[in-house]
Amino acid sequence: MPDAAGPAAAGPAGLALSSTPRTSHRRLREQGRTDRAELFAVLRAGFIAHLGVQAASGLMVVPTVYGFDERQLYVHGSVASQSLTAGEQVACVTVTIVDGLVLARSVFEHAVNYRSAMIYAVPRPLTDPAEKLAGLRLVSEHLAPGQWEYVRQPSRKELAATTLLAMSLDEASVKVRSGPPDDGDSADAGLGLWAGELPLAAAWQQPLADPALPPGIAVPAHIGRRAGTSVYPEDPDIPDP
Amino acid sequence: MPDAAGPAAAGPAGLALSSTPRTSHRRLREQGRTDRAELFAVLRAGFIAHLGVQAASGLMVVPTVYGFDERQLYVHGSVASQSLTAGEQVACVTVTIVDGLVLARSVFEHAVNYRSAMIYAVPRPLTDPAEKLAGLRLVSEHLAPGQWEYVRQPSRKELAATTLLAMSLDEASVKVRSGPPDDGDSADAGLGLWAGELPLAAAWQQPLADPALPPGIAVPAHIGRRAGTSVYPEDPDIPDP
Repeated sequence: MPDAAGPAAAGPAGLALSSTPRTSHRRLREQGRTDRAELFAVLRAGFIAHLGVQAASGLMVVPTVYGFDERQLYVHGSVASQSLTAGEQVACVTVTIVDGLVLARSVFEHAVNYRSAMIYAVPRPLTDPAEKLAGLRLVSEHLAPGQWEYVRQPSRKELAATTLLAMSLDEASVKVRSGPPDDGDSADAGLGLWAGELPLAAAWQQPLADPALPPGIAVPAHIGRRAGTSVYPEDPDIPDP
Repeated sequence: MPDAAGPAAAGPAGLALSSTPRTSHRRLREQGRTDRAELFAVLRAGFIAHLGVQAASGLMVVPTVYGFDERQLYVHGSVASQSLTAGEQVACVTVTIVDGLVLARSVFEHAVNYRSAMIYAVPRPLTDPAEKLAGLRLVSEHLAPGQWEYVRQPSRKELAATTLLAMSLDEASVKVRSGPPDDGDSADAGLGLWAGELPLAAAWQQPLADPALPPGIAVPAHIGRRAGTSVYPEDPDIPDP
């Protein structure tokens, strides 16, 4: 994404859009999506996030799992929490899905098709056990729907040992690029070169049983039925939160 | 990756490892990989990076394409450059490949199988045209091997309009998690629940011609032969730089 630059504004929860300096369109205005539904579409379709925080040792960008509800994103914050507890700093968390390569007639016009959401918020470490449990359930259900009810849920001790950060979705931006290259009507179109897209698709594979598993335990349906399905679905069949 | 916390140390270029406070193992020591070859394996296998920088408006985590050679990573820096030109701040750029879900017997032991590299460096905007051209070529060849020679290369004007940042690979860390869940010998193993991995695989699809393309232009071999191949190969068949 040489073009993944200027973020667009999504707005305060459930409302139309008010941009802040941070989320206003700085470049490539046409790539901005101003609909809050687009934010949830990216969050639903994505799988991991990259959380950027100022830690004591400096800036870090940490890959992390996440979940979300209508108002907040929930991320694991084991590293981040070192510094986050120190002060109220705005962090940025970005979810990106790569959909393919855009192959143009010139190097300069090459691009990536992608869907991306950037969220700016002060991460709030959850301390209330009920709120933490609810947040963890959202993370779990986002990653592996059905597992929360199937497996052993967190003990009090495990819950205490888990750092979960909540980040408001009020300040967010979404950018999407799709489709063919932009130089089909440029002078380069006369070069006689092939141009187009090289899409990529990520699919869940067949489950692999833990070698430690005793014989006779079947793969539960909520896991088995994911095999062959898209990891980053274009239009996830899940309602908005 | 609830577990994607403590980074490990890779070392100065081409040498064994010397950790800094930032890249030393803080947690989960067993996940650290201290071999520089592991860093290049992640960089070769990855496709996009997430660049974290302190911009004037605050911290941003921006998805970007990249390329690399033995000593440096090259990233597009259109947004980042706003603030980067202002001062010498260390940025963090992270490349993450998700390989699958780790389904344990308890919520707490769930994890993600992944490969991740974090690089800490002061981004240096390239100004020398030859150096910039060489860096762009590395980015282009990382994304789409063969395109650099096939398409029109950057004009002087396009080169000037491109912001490319070089970041030293001297301070980096790599983390990899693979394999089944860790609770196969825990008390939870007696629960009789299925546990294992749900791998994911991303593959390049058939190329899609730009609708603006006149008939009779064949897909070049360097593009066509990627269809069906892995986007994030485990062991890319490319030598170290």
